Amino acid sequence: MDAPLLHEPHHDGSALYLDPETPAPGWPVRVRLRTWVGDEVEAVWLRTTYDAEPVFHRCAEITRDETGDAPAEGGSVWWEGELPVHNPVTHYRFLLAGPGGTQRWLTAAGVVEHDTPDAFDFRVSSHAAPPEWGREAVVYQVFPDRFARSAAANERETPPWAVPAAWDDEVVFEGSDPRTPLQLFGGDLDGVTEHLDHVAALGVSVLYTTPVFPGESNHRYNASTFDGVDPLLGGDEAYARLSGAVHERGLRLLGDLTTNHTGDTHEWFRAALADPEGPGRGWYCFRADGSYECWMGHHTLPKLDHTDPGLREAMTEGPDSVVARWLRPPYDVDGWRIDVANMTGRLGATDVAHDVARTVRATAQAQRPDALVIGEHNHDASTDLDGDGWHGTMNYSGFSWPVWSWLRDEASPARAFGRPLPVPRRGGALVARTMREWTARHGWRATTWSWNILGSHDSARIRTLVGSPEQHRVAAGLQFTLPGVPMLFAGDEIGLEGVNGEDARRPMPWGSPATWDRQTMGTYAALARVRAEHPALVRGGLRWAHADDDTLIYVREHPAGSVLVCARRAPGEAISLPAAALALPALDGAPARPVGDPAPLLATEGAPAPLVVRDGELEVPAGGPGVTLWRL
Amino acid sequence: MDAPLLHEPHHDGSALYLDPETPAPGWPVRVRLRTWVGDEVEAVWLRTTYDAEPVFHRCAEITRDETGDAPAEGGSVWWEGELPVHNPVTHYRFLLAGPGGTQRWLTAAGVVEHDTPDAFDFRVSSHAAPPEWGREAVVYQVFPDRFARSAAANERETPPWAVPAAWDDEVVFEGSDPRTPLQLFGGDLDGVTEHLDHVAALGVSVLYTTPVFPGESNHRYNASTFDGVDPLLGGDEAYARLSGAVHERGLRLLGDLTTNHTGDTHEWFRAALADPEGPGRGWYCFRADGSYECWMGHHTLPKLDHTDPGLREAMTEGPDSVVARWLRPPYDVDGWRIDVANMTGRLGATDVAHDVARTVRATAQAQRPDALVIGEHNHDASTDLDGDGWHGTMNYSGFSWPVWSWLRDEASPARAFGRPLPVPRRGGALVARTMREWTARHGWRATTWSWNILGSHDSARIRTLVGSPEQHRVAAGLQFTLPGVPMLFAGDEIGLEGVNGEDARRPMPWGSPATWDRQTMGTYAALARVRAEHPALVRGGLRWAHADDDTLIYVREHPAGSVLVCARRAPGEAISLPAAALALPALDGAPARPVGDPAPLLATEGAPAPLVVRDGELEVPAGGPGVTLWRL
Repeated sequence: MDAPLLHEPHHDGSALYLDPETPAPGWPVRVRLRTWVGDEVEAVWLRTTYDAEPVFHRCAEITRDETGDAPAEGGSVWWEGELPVHNPVTHYRFLLAGPGGTQRWLTAAGVVEHDTPDAFDFRVSSHAAPPEWGREAVVYQVFPDRFARSAAANERETPPWAVPAAWDDEVVFEGSDPRTPLQLFGGDLDGVTEHLDHVAALGVSVLYTTPVFPGESNHRYNASTFDGVDPLLGGDEAYARLSGAVHERGLRLLGDLTTNHTGDTHEWFRAALADPEGPGRGWYCFRADGSYECWMGHHTLPKLDHTDPGLREAMTEGPDSVVARWLRPPYDVDGWRIDVANMTGRLGATDVAHDVARTVRATAQAQRPDALVIGEHNHDASTDLDGDGWHGTMNYSGFSWPVWSWLRDEASPARAFGRPLPVPRRGGALVARTMREWTARHGWRATTWSWNILGSHDSARIRTLVGSPEQHRVAAGLQFTLPGVPMLFAGDEIGLEGVNGEDARRPMPWGSPATWDRQTMGTYAALARVRAEHPALVRGGLRWAHADDDTLIYVREHPAGSVLVCARRAPGEAISLPAAALALPALDGAPARPVGDPAPLLATEGAPAPLVVRDGELEVPAGGPGVTLWRL
Repeated sequence: MDAPLLHEPHHDGSALYLDPETPAPGWPVRVRLRTWVGDEVEAVWLRTTYDAEPVFHRCAEITRDETGDAPAEGGSVWWEGELPVHNPVTHYRFLLAGPGGTQRWLTAAGVVEHDTPDAFDFRVSSHAAPPEWGREAVVYQVFPDRFARSAAANERETPPWAVPAAWDDEVVFEGSDPRTPLQLFGGDLDGVTEHLDHVAALGVSVLYTTPVFPGESNHRYNASTFDGVDPLLGGDEAYARLSGAVHERGLRLLGDLTTNHTGDTHEWFRAALADPEGPGRGWYCFRADGSYECWMGHHTLPKLDHTDPGLREAMTEGPDSVVARWLRPPYDVDGWRIDVANMTGRLGATDVAHDVARTVRATAQAQRPDALVIGEHNHDASTDLDGDGWHGTMNYSGFSWPVWSWLRDEASPARAFGRPLPVPRRGGALVARTMREWTARHGWRATTWSWNILGSHDSARIRTLVGSPEQHRVAAGLQFTLPGVPMLFAGDEIGLEGVNGEDARRPMPWGSPATWDRQTMGTYAALARVRAEHPALVRGGLRWAHADDDTLIYVREHPAGSVLVCARRAPGEAISLPAAALALPALDGAPARPVGDPAPLLATEGAPAPLVVRDGELEVPAGGPGVTLWRL
């Protein structure tokens, strides 16, 4: 049997370990480390870099719990040091000196016994914290053409480019079929407004719609203007009505803006084509021969050039920019999800991606100080977060793919983006390792503001990927209890299926409620409720307590009370954890919290079984598949 | 017994695996992967990112060696793919699909079974390659005050700031002793010129001197001008004489320039102090209260502000800058080692470090196209290399500290820079892991142009660290055979000692040749010779073949013939390696190279024992401590 994970040295960016979580530039933070009394740590140093020069700061032991009779039962030793935050984003790690001259490092990717490079160091950012509502959120993504039709939709004429579809028609989803982007089901914004009861009942706090600007496709990521809402969706007035209704309920509204490219029908692109000498030519990336750069080779999606001052003024800079305008009445959008943020401003030797991110954030926050900007990055966003740009990302790499690889049904054809093969089915230890490394690279803060996605309009549906309602609810349990913001793609909650992104855009079956998976819907609502009620699930740290092939156990630690989560993808035996390693000492004037009588909170299947503490061991009951939560 | 390391999938940035090593921007490279026939790889993809978007390119199997009877004896499978080099620095890794849907990644840090972030991806740079002489070099570092006195030195007056010392005096080396930086032994540049026979006999190709500009200290890193050579060293004329003599022998000369700060006696700083309203005030980092930023809190070392156009023009930009001037006759310096490059241009929220590096390189190369610029970075230089700035770094992290930790004498008080503890003694597997991760982060190309340092004027002497001549020669063996450029600190070759950087600056004992360790000197010369004669040791790849606590075996692979290296820190048994895994197939028109009759090349202790090939196994003979080289 391996040593308990809970006996490993631990630090993360949450309040128990970092105070304050967001320091003012130049001010120090208090940094804490937790070790186990049975692990003979003789001395601890914080190592940071100061303008890229390494420096060490000694930590002091502040409390030691030796209540257990045997070392295996012993509790924690807490260490504390002061970390100068000299650079806006300051890296740090811990040096642990042990008996016989041994030295280990603790980085955000775990403990190592060799002098590993800084790639996985902890990071603290003194850039202003993102808005709190962005971290507390439960996001609900709506793809307007497929969510709901208002009565007015029946009156609208089908545009020439579209292939009309009835609400119950099959979705064409082969990328090679020309109808795939053109099939128009006619969902509209008043349709969304009419179904906000459904959204609110799920415990959702943020409504995020994919683009509402007109474009000659059902997905509208090929905008033909940013000056108005698509009349097919009900136009500007319908958007204002939706916004009003959303805000009236105390919810937030996020828009979706494609900063990387427009459609080739866009008025800007038409002008650039029409006048090669005109000032708007530089807004796109034309080559000398008159051809132009475009997104992933698609000539209908010409790439914007963010080095052009005119484009920046039109799109991202100042109060008249697209970014700013829609944040004002009557739309009052609360922020943006930025499409293809990873490629925006990048082309070969040019890389102004961070400038764009910084500008979008500054412009949005000048308009509304609590604006949120989330950059789409379906891969490695680590160098694009934690700065003064995107507050978070759509966390496919650090959440979706590892969850997929743990829970996937081997028979499912679903794939992660761009991969030549489906994600393989992997055991829990590799999944935990993956999440740990991505959290390290993205940084703690950016991870907690990023979106935990089980699927989106761009991917297969989670239900199809995992193959059963039980496994789907395991996935949802992970989504709401791991660090990060749950984002549901509308229809996830009722078990909609889809083998790829296009297929996932099946219309919401409002007319056939008998097909809905109401148990899963109830699980989502219960998870949202428990997340809203327990700060640990929003702001708590993350300690991995157990990881075997079929079981993941972790604790979200918070001074107000920690939450223990056990996720099982298959039935499994009871598992013992060292209870003393979960206790909290008296810190910052708050009383000590021994692990006394853990309260069951929620189980995705049936009623949660009690946690039993006996002889210093905390026994997590047998069971599964399913996810169970307890309050410690 | 673990699986042989030689059976692991392998790729590195050398010519066997990457062609060309430096592509033109926008041109693809051919990328190869080597796997073992017993490792059932079913398909291979290259994964790269294209403006931060991941894309996959299928690789083809190009050759398969199944000559062995049993799989354990089988040879290699080679795969090849084409990698578009869309961005100036392009990242890539390999996806290996195996039986039963397993998927592994090969990154530059090794094989993993989970979806690890991109931090350790392979990298290829299309920025112009550094000058070839910089990679072929054996560098000899001279600290002018302590290398040699010419007769003229006796005629010079001791300046008021200095504490005069006789050549045989003890060096004061406690940082707390005010005499430490002031003790002047009076070495000069003509003294260096007079001893070039010694330097050349070692096989050195580059003479690098620490600063020759005047400064009120024995180290001269606190320059008082960059306009002339210190008269205490013989002035401009002596420097010109040294340069002439160096170049006459076909050697190269490198200067040392501190771009981060000057001395507080510098004429620029005096002017800035004298006239707070003057144009030179902005050359330094003055605060509003009249105080100023300085290096690590030392008020005598005011920090330069590279955001100031005037400073840039004076120091780094254009033909009249300090960087350019000394590269012209009569000095003809071949390039610079840039002091404190890691901190240069960095201060809190300001970071123009890459701009400075790019400017220094461009200015130097405008003066002489084959100029070399090496940035001092005593820690993690990974984000500062591989671009269009520094060609390499002083590779303390990726070479010095792991070698120290393998070979250190537990009784030695020597420490790595800034660390609160000595580096711990560690086994070979951890040392190889450390080197692999640093090579991954620094990039293959930058690693091969970076300096393999066993010690410098800033650190303890290797001899003191390892505690014996035998271990010293093991260290030298690693220095000349691992990827990178050997840099000797003058005196290393004769076994000079020193417990820290200041103590390491003991004067060269020209007058007491009986104290010299001539066996070690011979080893250095032999190593330099074998390195010059075998392209594998300069341009070859690196495959780890064996790593246990006391033994490291690796092969430097090259189409012109590979070199196998066995380093032992203690006596050890014979070790068997799979011979077929070391064979090269017919590639690019070159004939296949089976491992037939390996030729002993060199041993640091005694004569190299032969390598025996028997029943498909290559037997590395028992022995040690020592380093032995064979040509395969």
